[in-house]
Amino acid sequence: MVVGVDDMAADGAARLPAASRPGGRTARVRAAALRATEDALIEVGLARLDLADIARRAGIGKTTVYRRWRTVPALIADLLADMAEQSSPRSDTGSLAGDLLANAHLVQRTLTDARQGALFRAILAAALTDTDTAEALRRFYEARISEWEPCVYAAVERGELPAGTDAREVIRAVSAPLYHRLLTGEDIDPTHAEHAAATATAAARAGAYRP
Amino acid sequence: MVVGVDDMAADGAARLPAASRPGGRTARVRAAALRATEDALIEVGLARLDLADIARRAGIGKTTVYRRWRTVPALIADLLADMAEQSSPRSDTGSLAGDLLANAHLVQRTLTDARQGALFRAILAAALTDTDTAEALRRFYEARISEWEPCVYAAVERGELPAGTDAREVIRAVSAPLYHRLLTGEDIDPTHAEHAAATATAAARAGAYRP
Repeated sequence: MVVGVDDMAADGAARLPAASRPGGRTARVRAAALRATEDALIEVGLARLDLADIARRAGIGKTTVYRRWRTVPALIADLLADMAEQSSPRSDTGSLAGDLLANAHLVQRTLTDARQGALFRAILAAALTDTDTAEALRRFYEARISEWEPCVYAAVERGELPAGTDAREVIRAVSAPLYHRLLTGEDIDPTHAEHAAATATAAARAGAYRP
Repeated sequence: MVVGVDDMAADGAARLPAASRPGGRTARVRAAALRATEDALIEVGLARLDLADIARRAGIGKTTVYRRWRTVPALIADLLADMAEQSSPRSDTGSLAGDLLANAHLVQRTLTDARQGALFRAILAAALTDTDTAEALRRFYEARISEWEPCVYAAVERGELPAGTDAREVIRAVSAPLYHRLLTGEDIDPTHAEHAAATATAAARAGAYRP
């Protein structure tokens, strides 16, 4: 059962003025719309997604959805911005191997989680054939790579890696084989995450990510 | 303008008995249907692809298409089998770095070619949300990786790489960052191919692809 935001507003939530609630009505409308967008992406894919369906699923007035997001790509872009904000912060285990392993496990868990995995597959599929979604997804990965880059800077500081190592390329190198397995229809289990992290660590130590 | 197979059969091709032509009518029907499938995938994507549209685009009778392929996933699987057969053979440059560079350039050119790139994006998008297409695509990459594996065996023979190096993982490591760039909406130019090949070579030499 989907609890609509308008239903919530009709009971408890309506008793407090919006400004006094952490994440008031506006935040709850957004959360409901983004959740509905995830559901719709997983169930029907981008090609058949429309704002009226999102409004219905979220229990929000159509006018609210049209006024706030205007287009489906804008709604997907907002979803990806929210996903970037909600994503786990980077690890700081004290070693490059440990940090990259934590990153690899995070990617592996995300791509194989029943809901998150289906959502990522739907968004990746959409981005492959829609340039607005591709741009929103590019910004999402930009944010995620920036979050994890400091692991590489710290490793250079500790003398684990050669100076001039390209931090973004090291972080990409952890994800790349896992996403490649996703694309080529192979399983992605924790041993693949361990292998991806170990390979990126070994390659970085060998100086493979200097320009 | 699309020249249909039935048009071709109506003129020159009809003058020779099918058995005497290399790739007779059956082969030409298949080629036209697969070409039409590529066009349809690029233009409308898997979700809106249907066999009647393929028949119309290819200038083949609907009955022929339905009898031969029966379902859209079977047609896509046949397209991927054909793509695997038609793909370039592996390079043999005499060094691992040279072979992996040739592989990386091939992947880069394919993913950025106007038609091939659009076709791959459409097929990858379809595979992300359709399990039959995913399985057909897995077999395609299986064939492509098998084609290039001997480059790694030869490098081990020459003493360039440690014994026990996982050949499939080395070949995957060349493609993975390029496909990751495709997914994350980044450019893929020849310098990225060079970097992917150099990184995989350095990592393999450093022993990163031993179990």
